[in-house]
Amino acid sequence: MMRVAVVGGAGYIGGELLRLLVGHPEVELAAATSRSFAGRAVAGVHPNLRGRTELRFCEPAALGEYDLLFLAAPHRETMRRMPEFLGHAKTVIDLSGDFRLRSPEVYADYYGVPHEAADLLDSFTPGLPEFHREELRTADRISVPGCMATAGILTLAPVARAGLVEGEVTVDARTGSSGSGATAGPGNLHAERSGALRVFAPNRHRHEAEMAQATGLTVRMTASGVEAVRGVQVLCRVRLADGVDERALRAAYRTSYQHEPFVRIVAERRGLHRFPDPKILSGSNFCDVGFSVETGSPHALLIGALDNLVKGGAGNAVQAMNIRCGLPEHLGLEFTGLHPN
Amino acid sequence: MMRVAVVGGAGYIGGELLRLLVGHPEVELAAATSRSFAGRAVAGVHPNLRGRTELRFCEPAALGEYDLLFLAAPHRETMRRMPEFLGHAKTVIDLSGDFRLRSPEVYADYYGVPHEAADLLDSFTPGLPEFHREELRTADRISVPGCMATAGILTLAPVARAGLVEGEVTVDARTGSSGSGATAGPGNLHAERSGALRVFAPNRHRHEAEMAQATGLTVRMTASGVEAVRGVQVLCRVRLADGVDERALRAAYRTSYQHEPFVRIVAERRGLHRFPDPKILSGSNFCDVGFSVETGSPHALLIGALDNLVKGGAGNAVQAMNIRCGLPEHLGLEFTGLHPN
Amino acid sequence: MMRVAVVGGAGYIGGELLRLLVGHPEVELAAATSRSFAGRAVAGVHPNLRGRTELRFCEPAALGEYDLLFLAAPHRETMRRMPEFLGHAKTVIDLSGDFRLRSPEVYADYYGVPHEAADLLDSFTPGLPEFHREELRTADRISVPGCMATAGILTLAPVARAGLVEGEVTVDARTGSSGSGATAGPGNLHAERSGALRVFAPNRHRHEAEMAQATGLTVRMTASGVEAVRGVQVLCRVRLADGVDERALRAAYRTSYQHEPFVRIVAERRGLHRFPDPKILSGSNFCDVGFSVETGSPHALLIGALDNLVKGGAGNAVQAMNIRCGLPEHLGLEFTGLHPN
Amino acid sequence: MMRVAVVGGAGYIGGELLRLLVGHPEVELAAATSRSFAGRAVAGVHPNLRGRTELRFCEPAALGEYDLLFLAAPHRETMRRMPEFLGHAKTVIDLSGDFRLRSPEVYADYYGVPHEAADLLDSFTPGLPEFHREELRTADRISVPGCMATAGILTLAPVARAGLVEGEVTVDARTGSSGSGATAGPGNLHAERSGALRVFAPNRHRHEAEMAQATGLTVRMTASGVEAVRGVQVLCRVRLADGVDERALRAAYRTSYQHEPFVRIVAERRGLHRFPDPKILSGSNFCDVGFSVETGSPHALLIGALDNLVKGGAGNAVQAMNIRCGLPEHLGLEFTGLHPN
Repeated sequence: MMRVAVVGGAGYIGGELLRLLVGHPEVELAAATSRSFAGRAVAGVHPNLRGRTELRFCEPAALGEYDLLFLAAPHRETMRRMPEFLGHAKTVIDLSGDFRLRSPEVYADYYGVPHEAADLLDSFTPGLPEFHREELRTADRISVPGCMATAGILTLAPVARAGLVEGEVTVDARTGSSGSGATAGPGNLHAERSGALRVFAPNRHRHEAEMAQATGLTVRMTASGVEAVRGVQVLCRVRLADGVDERALRAAYRTSYQHEPFVRIVAERRGLHRFPDPKILSGSNFCDVGFSVETGSPHALLIGALDNLVKGGAGNAVQAMNIRCGLPEHLGLEFTGLHPN
Repeated sequence: MMRVAVVGGAGYIGGELLRLLVGHPEVELAAATSRSFAGRAVAGVHPNLRGRTELRFCEPAALGEYDLLFLAAPHRETMRRMPEFLGHAKTVIDLSGDFRLRSPEVYADYYGVPHEAADLLDSFTPGLPEFHREELRTADRISVPGCMATAGILTLAPVARAGLVEGEVTVDARTGSSGSGATAGPGNLHAERSGALRVFAPNRHRHEAEMAQATGLTVRMTASGVEAVRGVQVLCRVRLADGVDERALRAAYRTSYQHEPFVRIVAERRGLHRFPDPKILSGSNFCDVGFSVETGSPHALLIGALDNLVKGGAGNAVQAMNIRCGLPEHLGLEFTGLHPN
Repeated sequence: MMRVAVVGGAGYIGGELLRLLVGHPEVELAAATSRSFAGRAVAGVHPNLRGRTELRFCEPAALGEYDLLFLAAPHRETMRRMPEFLGHAKTVIDLSGDFRLRSPEVYADYYGVPHEAADLLDSFTPGLPEFHREELRTADRISVPGCMATAGILTLAPVARAGLVEGEVTVDARTGSSGSGATAGPGNLHAERSGALRVFAPNRHRHEAEMAQATGLTVRMTASGVEAVRGVQVLCRVRLADGVDERALRAAYRTSYQHEPFVRIVAERRGLHRFPDPKILSGSNFCDVGFSVETGSPHALLIGALDNLVKGGAGNAVQAMNIRCGLPEHLGLEFTGLHPN
Repeated sequence: MMRVAVVGGAGYIGGELLRLLVGHPEVELAAATSRSFAGRAVAGVHPNLRGRTELRFCEPAALGEYDLLFLAAPHRETMRRMPEFLGHAKTVIDLSGDFRLRSPEVYADYYGVPHEAADLLDSFTPGLPEFHREELRTADRISVPGCMATAGILTLAPVARAGLVEGEVTVDARTGSSGSGATAGPGNLHAERSGALRVFAPNRHRHEAEMAQATGLTVRMTASGVEAVRGVQVLCRVRLADGVDERALRAAYRTSYQHEPFVRIVAERRGLHRFPDPKILSGSNFCDVGFSVETGSPHALLIGALDNLVKGGAGNAVQAMNIRCGLPEHLGLEFTGLHPN
């Protein structure tokens, strides 16, 4: 039984961590911090946890020592306080954006501020089990990728690694409203956000840099808010290298994912569900990836989908924890998703 | 051509007034105030008006003299500033809650604060054309009913006036998110509000008092937020007086509404659209009312639906203006609503 | 390990049974029938089960012998084929409407057709653990209540049994679109159903009869479709008996539910989540019940919420199976629901 | 006053035509055909028209002679019956896909069937006022482009004509559910379609061919269903020619659209509404177009949005009719759209 704490438990990623940890058979959820809600019941903020936990939020200052600490704090604040956080647990899993990019220059470029803990960057392992499982078994500083980045990397990396694509990749990313967090503002007001098709980042979204770093590809990404609370979908357009066909694509995905517990290949000839759709993934830790090649052309569409709060955040973090702690990888992550939903 | 101004033009009711006034052939929209957006283009806040108006918001202090002034300011502020507002136009149409209830005691009871301009209450005429048309022709102080109140009154008044019901009435009111206004907060955050079935007023909602005042009935009302941006629906349960049947109900509604331009009787035997549904009313000034009587029983369900921002607010106000100014009543209110939507 | 089969596995209740059974540690899912999809992979119809089961649908005629058989077939067909079904397993759990009502007269009245297996009616035990747990331990014929009926019964029965209410009860039931099943028609076409507030049963809904039978109360129920795929909410208006106050209501609910694993009392003074809302219950087996009493009045509002496919159907059935088979009651039903969702 | 009829009035495009024609001051709506609903009131099928028209659907065989005939019939059937249709009116405006593509080979390629009235293809003028206004003044056979095609063409044509882009263009098109019509099936069942992000055409969508034909560009298009009833949005990625910057893009759009009544340029630096979003366009005849250029790069994102049933269909057809008949172009098309919605 591991003693675990969560920093920033009142947000949406934090709440999802709490949901998964409360139901995890090998975890004792020892603390969750929230400045705004310190002293209040966790289940008062996350009503799905009523009857499942009596825990109350505490002030960050009240943190003690734990086997493992999850960080769901804002970027900038996270890098500033990282030295302090590292004192509370041997293993730290960070879900902010601050330790995802290896290069402080790229960070400054995409985040618009200088990195304030650049010396720590190299010590973090990417919390993406599919491509860093061996490192994660012993990693004590883990940085979980962004939600759209995770979808993009899981969709692009197999074909990039196999050398199947050439030239630039364009990514059309769509996301639900929970991706912008639990703080109310004009942009996520229901009457404004409901039914929106809002291109909120025509280019230079931060997750673009993560995709490029992880795949070695030149990526051009746009991000749109769509009508959903949860869910991310990426549509990636690639040009296939000479002689690459659909069969080669499928083989590359199989090579990467046939033993993966949480990546499914979804690419069928017909049917309503022939391609990945986040609609059926809410609450699950699956990332579905698929592809379609235009007959007689070198153009392929690669599609990925996941729940931004689970495989795109908290679920991925718990999967990384399971690996780090030598637990069965699927523990606490068994929920399959709903159909219909 | 009338010169008209709107106080509080950046909110949702204010924005809807602007939409209707910009398209009104007999109105010159001379000013719209907004403290937060003074100096900015109206169409920057209400993007549906792009290309339709070059007007910019002004400070309230910049108001001049107009033929008619619409007030879409918050309650409390409205009653405090009413003497000032009355100086800007001969005719004032108020959409706040402050001048809807005749009795300052009832106001204090339902609003939780004392009325601060009780001496003015008697000078206001209800802005409900269906039951106050003659008074409205000469009224210079008009108070438009609340959105759920309008639906409830239009649904209940015909049967109340005809003496067809006895005992208490219960009203189950459902509303979209725009009813809570354009100010962001935890309750209307998209991720929280989307898909909600939120009983936000189990009893004692302010609109209950309006329904009681207008119909003379004892009304018990609950209010729920449902997944919609626009739309109000009321389900009213009544006990019919001895000998009253469905035919009598229909006759009462016909008597009240057969010549009304904006009330339709919707009560059919079958079909998807047999009863009023706000889904098809977005943007239109219709209030649809219907009914169903349980065979062999004295229990009837009366149903009303409207767009809370149009017939439940701005549209009703424009209809009242048309009456007051001797214009054709439907002017600027021709939009029929969409199907599907 | 129990060998279990599902009749009617391609529908929404059937699919939800399959989801729960695939994840159930003490169940071997041996067969699922579907006339339309016989021979096709279960995961092709219910894409959330991809990677979780290799099972294919079979023809009903291919059914063998099982420890337990779930029936998710249409009403009428179920009563006709019940003798046949009873031959396939010692224990049968039926989710159709055919064996819920004890009286064939009431059945004929509400279903509009005569009951064709009236002699079997008495042999069925209601699949509602909260009020029939002891009987369920040995029951071999179990009939699970309807979705809105379950919400209504769980909300009303504690106060009815404690004698806290008098007179008639009115129930305003709201339901998502999955309640009408997986067969496409004009009424559940997305463009028509999306955003609808459709009063589809102004009175005499079949679940009304179930509520009346289970609580002994006179119930008047309306049913409305609201914008949601999953979810049922009931608003029940009751008149409290002399001297009954909010404290007495709370005590009655506590008496009934304090040891129940899947009923939570949700009745708080304030907050977005002060009353039950199905929004946070999708996929979970919880039924949340709450109440509000108007100060100084005998009128109370009782509110219940659940996921129609889980606690309102398949989850309830699995809970009944667990009880019948001596398993821990929560087995396979641990999912807490999501926030936000 | 023109006497006008609509073939296929029970579908969604047909219904939208009826809405616009009923409200058009210079049109007498003389007939609307529907095989399924012949004899039934138009307002029974399109409930938004209650109180606005007493017209009943008639059999196609009952068609007489009109000044102008709108065709909202399925493709294939339209080309087969076109000779017959041409006998009912001097001017015919077709909204099917059959007469949009000039080349019978391209038609066969994209529609999968041979064209059956290829000799008529040349006689049709594209019903896109922005680029065919002069021809439309005298055209008697008009073919209105597809909904996604209209958005794509209006977004791409100005920059293509000005020679500002080079190489292939990729188009990510998103559409609401009304685009698939009023016939119920598994794909548009509410429980399946609600909240979906469904890539239903990874490539080779028919509207791709229309965009290519109208712009001369090589277009690669994907089409996704998103959660909405109405609305189309296209995201077009282009490579700018040497020396082309944002200013040049804006100039090209201004040149094309500054005098257009129904195209607005929406490309701002910031704000929730900085780019085109169909959310605020429901019911309106606007197509909003915008753009964003990545600083220091030749990559631009061009964005278009419209209501698929209005500017993407019926509204465009009415605008073409106004032009053809010498009427003010905006007649009957004044509705601005709603905010919020």
